[in-house]
Amino acid sequence: MTTTASPTSAAVAPAAPTSAAAVALRPVPTGASRITAGFWHERQEANRRQAIRTGYEKLQTAGNLQNLRIAAGTATGEVRGPIFMDSDVYKWLEAAGWEYGRGADAEVLGWIREVTEVVAAAQAEDGYLDSVQQVRGRGERYVDLPWSHEHYCAGHLFQAAVAVHRTTGETGLLDVAVKLADHLVATFGPGRIEEVDGHPVVEMGLVELYRETGTREYLDLARWFVDARGHGIIETKHGKQPTYFSDRVPVREATSPEGHAVRAVYLTAGAADVAAETADGELLTALARQWEGMLASKTYVTGGIGSRWDWEQFGDHHELSPDRAYAETCAAIGSVQWSWRMLLATGEARYADLVERTLYNAFLPGVSLAGTEYFYVNPLQLRHGAHAEEERSAAHGRRAWFDCACCPPNIMRTLSSLDAYVATSSAAGVQLHQFATGTVQAGGARLRVATDYPWDGAVRVEVADPGTGAWELALRVPAWAEGATATVAGEAVEVRAGEYLRLHRTWSAGDVVELTLPMGVRVVEADPRVDAVRGCVAVERGPLVYALEQTDLPEGLVADDVRVRVAELRGAPAEHRPELLEGVTVLQLPVHAAVHADEVPLYRPAGDEPAPQAAEEVLTVPAVPYYAWANRDLGAMRVWLPRA
Amino acid sequence: MTTTASPTSAAVAPAAPTSAAAVALRPVPTGASRITAGFWHERQEANRRQAIRTGYEKLQTAGNLQNLRIAAGTATGEVRGPIFMDSDVYKWLEAAGWEYGRGADAEVLGWIREVTEVVAAAQAEDGYLDSVQQVRGRGERYVDLPWSHEHYCAGHLFQAAVAVHRTTGETGLLDVAVKLADHLVATFGPGRIEEVDGHPVVEMGLVELYRETGTREYLDLARWFVDARGHGIIETKHGKQPTYFSDRVPVREATSPEGHAVRAVYLTAGAADVAAETADGELLTALARQWEGMLASKTYVTGGIGSRWDWEQFGDHHELSPDRAYAETCAAIGSVQWSWRMLLATGEARYADLVERTLYNAFLPGVSLAGTEYFYVNPLQLRHGAHAEEERSAAHGRRAWFDCACCPPNIMRTLSSLDAYVATSSAAGVQLHQFATGTVQAGGARLRVATDYPWDGAVRVEVADPGTGAWELALRVPAWAEGATATVAGEAVEVRAGEYLRLHRTWSAGDVVELTLPMGVRVVEADPRVDAVRGCVAVERGPLVYALEQTDLPEGLVADDVRVRVAELRGAPAEHRPELLEGVTVLQLPVHAAVHADEVPLYRPAGDEPAPQAAEEVLTVPAVPYYAWANRDLGAMRVWLPRA
Repeated sequence: MTTTASPTSAAVAPAAPTSAAAVALRPVPTGASRITAGFWHERQEANRRQAIRTGYEKLQTAGNLQNLRIAAGTATGEVRGPIFMDSDVYKWLEAAGWEYGRGADAEVLGWIREVTEVVAAAQAEDGYLDSVQQVRGRGERYVDLPWSHEHYCAGHLFQAAVAVHRTTGETGLLDVAVKLADHLVATFGPGRIEEVDGHPVVEMGLVELYRETGTREYLDLARWFVDARGHGIIETKHGKQPTYFSDRVPVREATSPEGHAVRAVYLTAGAADVAAETADGELLTALARQWEGMLASKTYVTGGIGSRWDWEQFGDHHELSPDRAYAETCAAIGSVQWSWRMLLATGEARYADLVERTLYNAFLPGVSLAGTEYFYVNPLQLRHGAHAEEERSAAHGRRAWFDCACCPPNIMRTLSSLDAYVATSSAAGVQLHQFATGTVQAGGARLRVATDYPWDGAVRVEVADPGTGAWELALRVPAWAEGATATVAGEAVEVRAGEYLRLHRTWSAGDVVELTLPMGVRVVEADPRVDAVRGCVAVERGPLVYALEQTDLPEGLVADDVRVRVAELRGAPAEHRPELLEGVTVLQLPVHAAVHADEVPLYRPAGDEPAPQAAEEVLTVPAVPYYAWANRDLGAMRVWLPRA
Repeated sequence: MTTTASPTSAAVAPAAPTSAAAVALRPVPTGASRITAGFWHERQEANRRQAIRTGYEKLQTAGNLQNLRIAAGTATGEVRGPIFMDSDVYKWLEAAGWEYGRGADAEVLGWIREVTEVVAAAQAEDGYLDSVQQVRGRGERYVDLPWSHEHYCAGHLFQAAVAVHRTTGETGLLDVAVKLADHLVATFGPGRIEEVDGHPVVEMGLVELYRETGTREYLDLARWFVDARGHGIIETKHGKQPTYFSDRVPVREATSPEGHAVRAVYLTAGAADVAAETADGELLTALARQWEGMLASKTYVTGGIGSRWDWEQFGDHHELSPDRAYAETCAAIGSVQWSWRMLLATGEARYADLVERTLYNAFLPGVSLAGTEYFYVNPLQLRHGAHAEEERSAAHGRRAWFDCACCPPNIMRTLSSLDAYVATSSAAGVQLHQFATGTVQAGGARLRVATDYPWDGAVRVEVADPGTGAWELALRVPAWAEGATATVAGEAVEVRAGEYLRLHRTWSAGDVVELTLPMGVRVVEADPRVDAVRGCVAVERGPLVYALEQTDLPEGLVADDVRVRVAELRGAPAEHRPELLEGVTVLQLPVHAAVHADEVPLYRPAGDEPAPQAAEEVLTVPAVPYYAWANRDLGAMRVWLPRA
């Protein structure tokens, strides 16, 4: 390419704006934010111990690497799996890259090098790379972009290449990415092929590759891809409307995400990258409006998105059925990526709030506590006696892998890069967005964070190295944390929920900020337009949404028959149980059993007022964090509980 | 075939048991039950005028007939459409056959002959017939029975052939059917190919062909197909479990239908035919249990079935979301076919009750009032502002035809044969199951029925010809009709809702029975386990379920914001409006507008009691019969209305 510039970003974690980018906050360099103990560290260690290794094995047994070898001509046979098989390789490579950054591990580096070689060998002379298309598609390129996922695979390759380059310093995969990106630049855009891929992600990938290489054309192409959408550019196939492909309304005009949930939020995340790097305030405003639309009527209480199983789509506004929640794990990840980029662009706490809610309650349920099994779909309710055992295991239990294995490596890369979402820096100082025990080094200062979050609301931040001069330490106070308190060096300061607690001063080594978030039970209800949970409440504590599981209920009480009174729930005691589900705080909920008349038909005459439905007797049953459900006996589960 | 017997059934409408069959009731001969005026007659006339003709044209333009010509070698090119394209031809032929029976029409007969020739020419020497498989599948047979629909197409051919034979007396199509059935008998069953089709219907078709021809092997094969299912005989493909194919549990052991709704009820309907013709009481009992299971927790208030868009399936028990109701029109038709066969077998009123509910509220919404456009899917709620216009037309508006055009000709054949569902006869006498103006000739007697049902509850039955001796006239009193009254020759008789009014006597010509069904507004609620409509009620009048449509609401009130008080609804006045929707009785419902606080987040702290949500002011808005929705402006619609 002709235009090159020195990379302006430091070697940092996902979404690293250039120095020219219009952003309020900047990520801290890789390794400068570290989660060293506690809740998320344990999840990361399970990911490290189990998932990354298993992923490496699955790439071999599921055929992904073999596909690339066949494309390279070093193996023969038919390629296997869905058309986007290469993307699993890239997402795993990205995970391995970030994981290497968490602590240089020779074995992981060996795997990265080995897989990189396989990828590089498959690449065509002119940079094109897509093993399934090269073999099954007989090398025909871009003949069915709405479905072929050729750019989708490329986007994941770009993200992987940047991760591996940032953490290992090795350029093997980056060279492959650049060669493919150059090919795309030469092939797509105004006056060339004017089409877009059915599945966004190349936009994020191209911007990140621009950030890493300084090649401006990558950014320009990403921007073109963002703006080309929404004009019906994608031919409707298989009876679906452009909506499915986020191609009904231009990104700049949309008021709410729609269509396939993962595609929609990957697109908006990429658009946020474009907005940042091109200082496009109009685009950013449009994205904020879409994000607000999502939050106002298309987000589950867990943060999960996508309520339709058919075509994995967003539903209409307020269409948020808990039993049929699709809430794909990948969609939660895409939502986090989008919110993270909006946070960087604006510095607004609401984006970090949604990152927190989504990570704990929509992303984390996607993986078993052992780090070995995955949910693709995350319902908020499973009925008692639903499905036969054999069906359950497929539809509801976590599985070791999938034919369409997008979620597992997506979870891996997110957990491996999670340290990056904890803190940012700006000219003003350092911002703490997520609460985890660890260290943050930014702006010349170093912080030590200690907390037993999410079980305990106390977050202790010690200024280990004050840096020079006065600067602002900003701590996010979640919107749910009404009544939070804080002290600085023992002195109380004013705290407002939903805003950053901003402490501007000249710090001394050893200064301690103590933020205390209220950890009482919160009972929430939904807007009455959410028909599916009318008359129900959900229970939260700290950042966690809770659920009832059948296995915790007394004999004879099925989860669907639990009824609650809000006033009784408020005083529900919390109890930390280290032996349960790798250590969780359970809530002991007072509940009532519904009473069903025998032999009453499904539909019956309605009384003037709804009939009382529950026994007066109070039973106490434990609720567990929703993320931990289905790690024991798989049975009925409910997040939303009907009022008595 | 070796075994033949004289056909024992008279020439009657669908599902005509042989004289040896174990049934309580028998259909009356074709033409002996006639709907001559009123509600259903008008729907039948729209079907006759518009749909049958349009169907004939669509078979040409959509490629169905061309496919058969290509298979016959009289045309060249690629076959078009889905794998079951032939079945549309057969369903249309069946409709044309019954329609010819409604009133001999030379043009219809000409079409039948023409299409029959096309079908016959495509048949292979040994009887095999499936144009798509013969051409696209290069003649390979039965290599993918779970998906190939080869038996499915055959089953529809058998039903069509019987209809055409019964009404025209011509044997052309019957010859084709027999040749194919003989081929199936020679090919499938114990010791031959021991597999079943992924999509049932061949069972019903084979039994009906047995009834028409007396060939016992057809019945035996149907029975074998019924009993072979449920043992995992269908290899799981595409990640779906045997559940989808009704292959998880044997028919004799199932307690509730599950999986693909149309497949499930076509199977049970065929099994009911088998049970009748083999006097298999055990099988009938199992089917009754399944039917009860369906009614207890898997049926919409409309009678519609199938709550999942993904794979068009039954949901779990009580999973009956109104907004995402799939409630495929074909599934409603299958449900009617099943209930009809259960009614014949048992004579129990509850089966005729469900036929009524389903015909009016789940089948009829599937076709526009003009008879020209069809719903494949029948939701019970469409949100205000849902989808963009372009999306709406595809997802929610009726359409003239579909790529997968199963529903339109299925509607046609049902309307054309509807007369058959009105009455039956038995040794005891004559039974009236559905209320429509017309004549019934059975058991030597002749009845004249006059009614303005479903708008008016008065049904007048005049004994035009009393026949000889004493016999019982039985009139179904719907379960909803608490408070119904009746007179015989002016004298009051006792009436019980949910049972037949049985009048046994020696009748005289001119005797009149007047049944008066109460036509007040009924307000119903669902079992509280139906989470999706918690706190809501639906409004019914007579056999009709009502709905609110946005187009009828005052400016500023959206359908989703309507709240109701049950006590106020009970007195809602009914008003017949002949100019509206081809004449409907509307209900003037007193409602309240919900009040939404501004800027309240989607999830919010719950009060001890649900907050009052509606304004005190009473507005009066008209509700229309659900079947008539979406015949004007397509907008928001609700069947279930939240309580204030």
